[in-house]
Amino acid sequence: MKALIERIRCEGRNLGQGILKVDGFINHQLDPALTVEMGREFARRFAQAGVTGITRVITAEVSGIAPALTTGLALGVPVLYARKTRPITMANGVYRAEAPSHTKGGMVELMVSPEYLHPHDRVIIIDDFLASGKTIAALADLVQQCGATLCGIGCVIEKSFEEGRARLAYLNVPIVSLAVIESMEGDQIQVREWEGAVSR
Amino acid sequence: MKALIERIRCEGRNLGQGILKVDGFINHQLDPALTVEMGREFARRFAQAGVTGITRVITAEVSGIAPALTTGLALGVPVLYARKTRPITMANGVYRAEAPSHTKGGMVELMVSPEYLHPHDRVIIIDDFLASGKTIAALADLVQQCGATLCGIGCVIEKSFEEGRARLAYLNVPIVSLAVIESMEGDQIQVREWEGAVSR
Repeated sequence: MKALIERIRCEGRNLGQGILKVDGFINHQLDPALTVEMGREFARRFAQAGVTGITRVITAEVSGIAPALTTGLALGVPVLYARKTRPITMANGVYRAEAPSHTKGGMVELMVSPEYLHPHDRVIIIDDFLASGKTIAALADLVQQCGATLCGIGCVIEKSFEEGRARLAYLNVPIVSLAVIESMEGDQIQVREWEGAVSR
Repeated sequence: MKALIERIRCEGRNLGQGILKVDGFINHQLDPALTVEMGREFARRFAQAGVTGITRVITAEVSGIAPALTTGLALGVPVLYARKTRPITMANGVYRAEAPSHTKGGMVELMVSPEYLHPHDRVIIIDDFLASGKTIAALADLVQQCGATLCGIGCVIEKSFEEGRARLAYLNVPIVSLAVIESMEGDQIQVREWEGAVSR
């Protein structure tokens, strides 16, 4: 997705240890028009990949919410965001899976209410980053726990050098990314289109 | 906003102690089309209230992100979400303010990077709920700390019986809400339009 790649080239900063700072349009500040375009691009690429009949988008709070919302908008389906802390409105008997915490270190629990994820659902996972793949694996676990069908995975930025794509191969679904970071060395951030489907 | 009020009437549940369960379209699952309509309605009502020249929308993670994103989309401006845990990409020297935690009890710190909030900014605050008003007061504090101008406050659902509106009167800006819960007793949830501006 050219507009996204341009934005990463302009604003992305390598903070070292594999950390890419893109908080001007992903993790802290959002560009609403760019985020809507991300959703449209996910919908387009999933269609190209033959992923159809989606009934629900699932993501994890916090940074997945914006691109998941716009993907749900493009597909015309509800969006579910797994919670990391249980709100007082969430009943017991939720599905739970463990994912790494990007802010606190260690692990954090992802929780989804069975009210909003059903065995007949055909689900795609959307998240901001695909790095180690562990958060997405936890979301896939939640989808599986409720007996729904996982149909695809979409991430805004894939850090290919962390090899999450290979780790998620066992899920046997298309994995779409809108920009691929191949390497980050000093000021040099190598970013390219994902080649798995026709790009705009 | 009629579609929202209908949704609250159909799906809202009184969990007691002033807690309204609306996690089918606000706090856990999102209806993307309804959320886009919320953003348009905020933009329309702020315009009616004479609030113009907005340069930025600010909210707090987690549940404020979706309606803030669609409001930023309607206004064509960036959206900033205050973080509750400091991501590794967030530098030191951030603005901080304390707000009540709705999931953990006690207080939580809201953090905003000075990179994305500037003295020349004209800001509106968007959040999912206006209850005690303390989270919105904390966001207003962040806006003030950076020297920006607070121009308006918008909340999706106002629980008028918690009197947050009166507590925020000192800010002297229009407060727009899309639905007002006047009371909740047993199964009876009294919800109405906010009368401060022309509604659709």
